[in-house]
Amino acid sequence: MTAGRRIPLAFVGGGRRSLIGGVHRAAAALSERFALKGGVFGTDPARERARAHALGLDERRIHADLPALFASERALPPGECIEAIAVLTPNHLHFEQVLGALRAGLHVICEKPFTVTAGQADELARVAVANDRLVCVAHTYTGYPMVRQMRALIAAGAIGTVQKIDARYYQGWINPALQDAGSRAAIWRLDPARSGPSCCYGDIGVHAFDLVEYTTGLRVQRVLADLRAMPGAGGLDIDGTTLLRTADGVPGVLRASQVATGEENSVGIAVYGSRGALKWSHDAPAQLIHLREDAPMRVFTPGHAFNEALGRGASQLPPGHPQGLVEAMANLYRGFADALDGDDGAHERFRGIEAGVRGMRFLEAVTESNRGGSVWTEIRE
Amino acid sequence: MTAGRRIPLAFVGGGRRSLIGGVHRAAAALSERFALKGGVFGTDPARERARAHALGLDERRIHADLPALFASERALPPGECIEAIAVLTPNHLHFEQVLGALRAGLHVICEKPFTVTAGQADELARVAVANDRLVCVAHTYTGYPMVRQMRALIAAGAIGTVQKIDARYYQGWINPALQDAGSRAAIWRLDPARSGPSCCYGDIGVHAFDLVEYTTGLRVQRVLADLRAMPGAGGLDIDGTTLLRTADGVPGVLRASQVATGEENSVGIAVYGSRGALKWSHDAPAQLIHLREDAPMRVFTPGHAFNEALGRGASQLPPGHPQGLVEAMANLYRGFADALDGDDGAHERFRGIEAGVRGMRFLEAVTESNRGGSVWTEIRE
Amino acid sequence: MTAGRRIPLAFVGGGRRSLIGGVHRAAAALSERFALKGGVFGTDPARERARAHALGLDERRIHADLPALFASERALPPGECIEAIAVLTPNHLHFEQVLGALRAGLHVICEKPFTVTAGQADELARVAVANDRLVCVAHTYTGYPMVRQMRALIAAGAIGTVQKIDARYYQGWINPALQDAGSRAAIWRLDPARSGPSCCYGDIGVHAFDLVEYTTGLRVQRVLADLRAMPGAGGLDIDGTTLLRTADGVPGVLRASQVATGEENSVGIAVYGSRGALKWSHDAPAQLIHLREDAPMRVFTPGHAFNEALGRGASQLPPGHPQGLVEAMANLYRGFADALDGDDGAHERFRGIEAGVRGMRFLEAVTESNRGGSVWTEIRE
Amino acid sequence: MTAGRRIPLAFVGGGRRSLIGGVHRAAAALSERFALKGGVFGTDPARERARAHALGLDERRIHADLPALFASERALPPGECIEAIAVLTPNHLHFEQVLGALRAGLHVICEKPFTVTAGQADELARVAVANDRLVCVAHTYTGYPMVRQMRALIAAGAIGTVQKIDARYYQGWINPALQDAGSRAAIWRLDPARSGPSCCYGDIGVHAFDLVEYTTGLRVQRVLADLRAMPGAGGLDIDGTTLLRTADGVPGVLRASQVATGEENSVGIAVYGSRGALKWSHDAPAQLIHLREDAPMRVFTPGHAFNEALGRGASQLPPGHPQGLVEAMANLYRGFADALDGDDGAHERFRGIEAGVRGMRFLEAVTESNRGGSVWTEIRE
Repeated sequence: MTAGRRIPLAFVGGGRRSLIGGVHRAAAALSERFALKGGVFGTDPARERARAHALGLDERRIHADLPALFASERALPPGECIEAIAVLTPNHLHFEQVLGALRAGLHVICEKPFTVTAGQADELARVAVANDRLVCVAHTYTGYPMVRQMRALIAAGAIGTVQKIDARYYQGWINPALQDAGSRAAIWRLDPARSGPSCCYGDIGVHAFDLVEYTTGLRVQRVLADLRAMPGAGGLDIDGTTLLRTADGVPGVLRASQVATGEENSVGIAVYGSRGALKWSHDAPAQLIHLREDAPMRVFTPGHAFNEALGRGASQLPPGHPQGLVEAMANLYRGFADALDGDDGAHERFRGIEAGVRGMRFLEAVTESNRGGSVWTEIRE
Repeated sequence: MTAGRRIPLAFVGGGRRSLIGGVHRAAAALSERFALKGGVFGTDPARERARAHALGLDERRIHADLPALFASERALPPGECIEAIAVLTPNHLHFEQVLGALRAGLHVICEKPFTVTAGQADELARVAVANDRLVCVAHTYTGYPMVRQMRALIAAGAIGTVQKIDARYYQGWINPALQDAGSRAAIWRLDPARSGPSCCYGDIGVHAFDLVEYTTGLRVQRVLADLRAMPGAGGLDIDGTTLLRTADGVPGVLRASQVATGEENSVGIAVYGSRGALKWSHDAPAQLIHLREDAPMRVFTPGHAFNEALGRGASQLPPGHPQGLVEAMANLYRGFADALDGDDGAHERFRGIEAGVRGMRFLEAVTESNRGGSVWTEIRE
Repeated sequence: MTAGRRIPLAFVGGGRRSLIGGVHRAAAALSERFALKGGVFGTDPARERARAHALGLDERRIHADLPALFASERALPPGECIEAIAVLTPNHLHFEQVLGALRAGLHVICEKPFTVTAGQADELARVAVANDRLVCVAHTYTGYPMVRQMRALIAAGAIGTVQKIDARYYQGWINPALQDAGSRAAIWRLDPARSGPSCCYGDIGVHAFDLVEYTTGLRVQRVLADLRAMPGAGGLDIDGTTLLRTADGVPGVLRASQVATGEENSVGIAVYGSRGALKWSHDAPAQLIHLREDAPMRVFTPGHAFNEALGRGASQLPPGHPQGLVEAMANLYRGFADALDGDDGAHERFRGIEAGVRGMRFLEAVTESNRGGSVWTEIRE
Repeated sequence: MTAGRRIPLAFVGGGRRSLIGGVHRAAAALSERFALKGGVFGTDPARERARAHALGLDERRIHADLPALFASERALPPGECIEAIAVLTPNHLHFEQVLGALRAGLHVICEKPFTVTAGQADELARVAVANDRLVCVAHTYTGYPMVRQMRALIAAGAIGTVQKIDARYYQGWINPALQDAGSRAAIWRLDPARSGPSCCYGDIGVHAFDLVEYTTGLRVQRVLADLRAMPGAGGLDIDGTTLLRTADGVPGVLRASQVATGEENSVGIAVYGSRGALKWSHDAPAQLIHLREDAPMRVFTPGHAFNEALGRGASQLPPGHPQGLVEAMANLYRGFADALDGDDGAHERFRGIEAGVRGMRFLEAVTESNRGGSVWTEIRE
């Protein structure tokens, strides 16, 4: 019985000053399903040895580039060598790194946006299938217990037929940098060469989009986008509202902004149905609000036996014990580990390469719609 | 010194089963600036006499139609005869009634939407000027102390330059009726003959629009609307998202829905500026949230000496004494009374005919944009 | 059919600068069941005539003292002369004024604390019975729709057997005055000669106590109080916690403070039962929280058809239309009017003289417990 | 430079079904300052080997009792052998186990309540000093960033002189068990032989007490307790309110209940000062509310550069990234690790043996006060 075994894992990126590196390291540890064994963190050998020590890693498994990592690990016995790699580098590097990892026979956890172009995502999907490898795209918010509860309740018909979708990701931390060239230069997301063709939608809009498709189980078919660049943002979008229409004709709106001054990571989604509504916001991530016309508002919280199985399984603690972003990410790691160990049901508990492809095609359509002057544009199927 | 005198007032509409009639009656009483003296409530003489008694009115001042009311009041001595009339009837009647009242030399308080077409609103504006009469359009939400505080803070530069506007009016009460022809028939708003060309935008969208222009002091120049009718709604819009652009190029989004199942009267506005943001929601009307990147969130509440004058003046009670919709409406009545008594500063404390005209031109542009397939459309200046 | 008739009413106190005068005037008007006709507001004849004009009153019905008011009204025909009087003066005047009014055949609405001593309350109760007059004590918070919903749900068994009670009234507005002799002198509540033997418990503690008995339907039998005076408070309590025990042995705690710096009028109550709990707070008066172990939290709001009759009847508006303190007070006025017109069921919709007597006996026991060094003390039956 | 080194750690208790075991394991991993190397988890050898595997531990370092663990570890070279042990067993075992560990030269992390009697805590304090070992008592809530921010703000004078303290720990999960003997038996906290002389105060009351002394920096001098046992609770207190008085005469109230049906882990504290107030609640752990009379309410959140150093240091993530209970516990582990590595300033970042002693003396005084019929009782100095 392999359930619970710790899958050997490496990182590329996620080094010393990386926020996301710390989150993934913590999530892997919390999951108790992966064991970080090595990686490619940087190029300064002395600093890397210090890091190895600080992280409790064997310094021989820390390398200066991916080919060296792959070669070195391949030489280790099965059960010891890494089976998966987490790609935590800036966006423009994802494609080559994921491609290399898949070809090296590794499963991949990749930060979002998955790639720079939708074509790259298509290509990686083909390679993953060809190599029989799995990919997990780090749409962290889908790891929150109440987001999973929301998906399960909608699937169970708790709100009837979906009538209206309203998703949002507002934040403001980039705003001060836009007024200050110095701090701006330190933000790679504002550099098109590293960020790709989109800042706001690539960084946060895709999260909101993924929440729409994950919670409703519906497919967005068309978009109409009104994006906005700002001086200092290298021509990249920094804000934008997108109208949505699902394949079934359900209207929606997706609002994203990085100049929502003072907002922290205010991502959320409301889905209104013929018989009720469900609302979740990262501002109070342990609450799932259920509205109806014929009964008082209900508020679901994690840890209760009466929650849906999908929501219940995402909480490691009893009710009233706050869990945060790292726990949400750990839930993705757990789901991915289960899938790697052959549990087909686990595919609902992480976001696979299909979500990465969908996100990139959404970005493609949004960009095209905006370029055309805010016209309805199909998401490529 | 006339401050505090009670201005004689009549109603047209707002009868026995009218919600809005009760709100206006209460607001007029609370304001202590108007005295309801008579009106046209219905056509059954016996019922009207009973009403006169119940409302403490002289039954001789209750009439079956406006011409009779006007004639009868004109015969009374100045100081006794009505000086103003509140028009509380379904939308399609507003134009003729307001026109008649203005020509009869009365000032007018009118429910929204002001008229059925923008052309009617233009015409009324001309007649009001020609007759030197004032009009107050019942954009009640602008009467809340914290909405006024928001306007004052933005005007004072508290959030710097406006970068982004997000307004909303979500409600769900019509939703059950859409599935039931019987209850549907009882809702005049779902009947195009009485409601005019718009349901959702005419009834609630204009409120959100008015909040945008009232709180920011900016003018919306262009809109792109995506409206949606639903079976059972007589072809009228029941939901819709509208993209906004102000004359200065500030982007915005206005979301309105009457199928936001379970929402009560969830109207609100968030304005993000270069140095901070302000957010208000009717769900917690006594709170005005002030976000900044460089300081903790602040929450303004009514009644404090440190509030801006405009916000301070809208609260009749010390901090911690909840005030509701009727008090907000009473603030409009107070502002209107002050304006009638010659206080020029009072025009910031009620919504005049300009707001009515703006609202109708917004509706006109929204309808046209939507009809054209969601294209950017200018609001007529 | 007298339902809906407007009962002629006078005020004693509640003059020009009185907060509570404005609240009662607005509540009487909103109720549409009382008509303010006259009163004793002050002693300067010119100022009183100006007031009469501002309030739309006949200046002949404004008097300099109660005997003059009573005599003058008695001379008017039935249906015109006042039937009730609202006593809005500082505490030390209540006893004589209520006594006089009852003996003059008037019904009485009286601010709290009802009297200065429990003996006075007992005496007034005897006189009221002897004269067959009704008294309404202004425990305003019992007029909020969700407080009434709470009472009805507990009575209906929604939370099982009550196990624990936690009531609170925290406010901070007096705090700054304690540090400043000048502003202190202007607060009559800090003057024992006018306030009576208690400041914090007399002014706000009794409200919390009344909420306990109103919502649970239980009787508090014993108290243990720990009160605290502060320099500048004239020896009066300004803060205190009281342990409670009901006749059935249910424990409780009542927390009151006027030095809870920054709190506005944070009165609230939580009642925990064997099967659930209900919580209400004035900080969000339109929400009643219902907790259970075996189901998600529910939040009741006013205006819904599924609310209990008692809660439903306290809301004049549909869901989502905020109602405040004045509306709560108006609900007491409505209940009192119905009782005056013979509706026995109305006694659940205002707080009668029994509540006034209970409040004073609670104050008596609290004061005695504290004087004895915080010992368990019976509330006199 | 040893900062960042991973200190070898063992567990006693915290086995398969243990909630708290999982929390400590996750916290140690998240802290990146401790490495779990072995322990005493249970007595079934086969099961223990399986566990070793699942936790990635060397099965030779898993033992059936503490003497075996100590002997085995002592044989390992410095830098490899454990330096600390986390005691996660039921209360009645703490004393012997901590004593053994201290004498074996280990530092100790211990769950609360620290011991069963105050005398035991005194004894352990003496032994710790004699052996020059440090102890960390797991008062997890002091690890939340906003609790630390609260302490720092009060110390910096942000609210002036403390006037009033209100602490609370309400939960309801035991409530259903009280009505059901079967599930009751599974809860060791309801068994006096394992739980010690107190259930509610030992398990959760001490948390609230520790928050009082941690956030205010004041010492509680006297208590007056009103505890309540319930049928099914083995004579143990299941609910109780305690009046507090600090050495400076500041009044306070501490409310604890395990029959607060439907509450999850609603622990919180409000401290009112002469110039402002601070409030924190576990129900929204990322918010610290700052009230003042002369300015709008402010809400501090973690991750901001403008936070106090103590609060800032407790957040590993930027603003808007929720952190939960495990992160709070990890902060204690980090502070403890820093202290073990000689950082004197770290003693503000975990709760040492002094907090354990204070908690037990508080329990001693509470129990005595209650036994005496709720009389003021000194906490032994």
